[in-house]
Amino acid sequence: MRHLYTDAKLVTMASDIHNSDGYQCQDHSAIAVENGKIVALGQDAEQLDWPKQSLNGRLVTPGLIDSHTHLVFAGNRADEFEQRLNGVPYQTIAEQGGGILSTVQATRAASDAELLALALPRAEALMRDGVTTIEIKSGYGLTLDDELKMLRVAKAIEQHLPVNVSTTLLAAHAIPPEYQHDADHYIAHICQSIIPAAAEQQLADAVDVFCENIAFSVDQAEKIYAAANAHGLNIKAHTEQLSDLGGSVAAAKAGAYSVDHIEYLSEADTQILAEFGTVATLLPGAFYFLRETQIPPIEALREHHVPMALATDFNPGTSPFASLTLMMNMASTLFGLTPKENLYGVTRHAAQALGLTNKGQIAVGFDADFAVWQCDTPAELSYMVGTAPLVGRVVNGIWYPATPTPQSTPHQENQE
Amino acid sequence: MRHLYTDAKLVTMASDIHNSDGYQCQDHSAIAVENGKIVALGQDAEQLDWPKQSLNGRLVTPGLIDSHTHLVFAGNRADEFEQRLNGVPYQTIAEQGGGILSTVQATRAASDAELLALALPRAEALMRDGVTTIEIKSGYGLTLDDELKMLRVAKAIEQHLPVNVSTTLLAAHAIPPEYQHDADHYIAHICQSIIPAAAEQQLADAVDVFCENIAFSVDQAEKIYAAANAHGLNIKAHTEQLSDLGGSVAAAKAGAYSVDHIEYLSEADTQILAEFGTVATLLPGAFYFLRETQIPPIEALREHHVPMALATDFNPGTSPFASLTLMMNMASTLFGLTPKENLYGVTRHAAQALGLTNKGQIAVGFDADFAVWQCDTPAELSYMVGTAPLVGRVVNGIWYPATPTPQSTPHQENQE
Ligand SMILES: [Zn+2]
Ligand SMILES: [Zn+2]
Repeated sequence: MRHLYTDAKLVTMASDIHNSDGYQCQDHSAIAVENGKIVALGQDAEQLDWPKQSLNGRLVTPGLIDSHTHLVFAGNRADEFEQRLNGVPYQTIAEQGGGILSTVQATRAASDAELLALALPRAEALMRDGVTTIEIKSGYGLTLDDELKMLRVAKAIEQHLPVNVSTTLLAAHAIPPEYQHDADHYIAHICQSIIPAAAEQQLADAVDVFCENIAFSVDQAEKIYAAANAHGLNIKAHTEQLSDLGGSVAAAKAGAYSVDHIEYLSEADTQILAEFGTVATLLPGAFYFLRETQIPPIEALREHHVPMALATDFNPGTSPFASLTLMMNMASTLFGLTPKENLYGVTRHAAQALGLTNKGQIAVGFDADFAVWQCDTPAELSYMVGTAPLVGRVVNGIWYPATPTPQSTPHQENQE
Repeated sequence: MRHLYTDAKLVTMASDIHNSDGYQCQDHSAIAVENGKIVALGQDAEQLDWPKQSLNGRLVTPGLIDSHTHLVFAGNRADEFEQRLNGVPYQTIAEQGGGILSTVQATRAASDAELLALALPRAEALMRDGVTTIEIKSGYGLTLDDELKMLRVAKAIEQHLPVNVSTTLLAAHAIPPEYQHDADHYIAHICQSIIPAAAEQQLADAVDVFCENIAFSVDQAEKIYAAANAHGLNIKAHTEQLSDLGGSVAAAKAGAYSVDHIEYLSEADTQILAEFGTVATLLPGAFYFLRETQIPPIEALREHHVPMALATDFNPGTSPFASLTLMMNMASTLFGLTPKENLYGVTRHAAQALGLTNKGQIAVGFDADFAVWQCDTPAELSYMVGTAPLVGRVVNGIWYPATPTPQSTPHQENQE
């Protein structure tokens, strides 16, 4: 399983964002791949007499990594979206069983096969944008069985599509109806039953908590983190999305790989993220969809050299966006991130947010996951939306061309 | 050329938005098409013993109409986008030849064939979203020859792709360098040379003006409208995008089919649009990309029953978005439009904005342009982005399936 990809315009992301000026593109370079790993680059690779595939001088970046999604779910919230725009008060929608609990109900009722059938086209949508690794959270089951079911389905995607999946147990996403006035008992159930089961069955790479006034407190989150650490699972957290509760700092101190949303993170706390090496994950899709106005402390994150990741947060309630390049545009347009920061955010920094030390860069020893683009500069990926510049993806060393567009050959499909 | 499309869940848009509750979906209905026209619907159609194609119960809407684009252009503004995000002042970018004049320079330098090659994938991007008719403006040539070249290229798209094109002469897009301090003489040149030539060569369906402090005054615009009317061309206008100059009312009084942008339109003036039957075209992509905060007077437009159209404004400077469904999401998220208003905005009202009396509805006598969707309700088209629910399009009676996704059949493309 040896393969040589030649004539690539490489954007390796192999330098720290603070040590690099520009993208350091390497024209007409080569990538040697053996058993799914990058084993040589540039002149070292070109010397090899292996089966060759020319990339025709095209731009090649690490495969994009969507480090925060909720793409396994059943049910449809379009009706709720429409009701809201038609002026139906949120209270009425909630009384009709709308909101996150409608997704929980539908997800509980769905079989593994049904959930998988719904999830696959969503994963494919991300792949059309150059994504080669997707993090997927549970969190719409909220029972032991249903949380494990979601994680099983997430992992199964890897068997059906050429994409890598990282799974995160988010049993602490919302308080389930069964524990409505008893969140502490639900937290105990997560710590004593759900986390151990997920760890034992090797279904989760990480554990996540929605730490917010409308969900779980910092104290409750810390119990989850302790259980996660006890079972050798990574930690991630939804924090400071709607208020400054101190959840990001608590997560960082517990060893979280990333804290996500963080619109309300104080500038002072960005320094603590830097100290603990925590990634700050920005989710502009939810910011846009909820019409939020509080912008994350970007300048302070830059100053303290906190790595910023960027993800879709793809979910039916607050970020129905299955496009990581659209998020790159939103990060620039809404948060002022540079296209270079965006590209780090969906490659190197996204890998760091997932603890994937072999992904996110094109470098010797790294997994051979990369994306090939029909564009002149990496900035174009953050700029134009809808024109689909992806030529193909290499996942674990294997080439998958992007969808050809039969519409380019008009009248061929005429069935008359 | 007779064809019967059966088992459609029809959303006809055949009722005035103010006369209809909901979408009035007709399940399991049929559409009979003869020579590109709809000749019978429902039971009348089902009786016909014509070649049949089942649409499998899927949702069928009129083909979407993008009634405002600038998709013929050369050059690339991604670098400028990146410079701006890197903190380079606008003044410096302009001194380096950036801004609209960089697009003008590149477009003037490009041949018909080069412009066409650049435009086709942009049109295909819109088609992937269910678009069957695209309006395309000139406006990056700003000389007689270059404006006509742009219009020729726009019309040529129709010969290469299964999509209808409506062309608009926008010579009054910006003051060309040759007339930098002499806008009035440029206006005279447009009226005396460019409009007559475009009309004589039948290259333009309409004439448009960018009426704004940074472009052309209401007085200058009125001269253009008079010339357009004299040559039997329709009128459209870019008005009230950045300030309330009175351009919309002037255009309406001159007989404009639509006034576009209109963030700064006064509530009082919405009534005048209603009186003259002018369509109000909303362009949320430019609003989003420019981080504008002034929202168009939606409530007043509703009250006075002004039809609202919705378009991409696809262009390299202020709306690099080749997705009409993304605009539907932005119209709801940023302007509060309902999914139903959005669907009218990209079908019936968009047709009205272009004076296309045979498009935008599924009704007997109308052109057989429709889009077939894999979703339960029309609201989903405004809600989720990236998941590509398009199954196929019928253009002038002929079926074109949407791109299949080879990624659904994993490992098939393994070239090792
Ligand atoms: Zn989330
Ligand atoms: Zn425009």
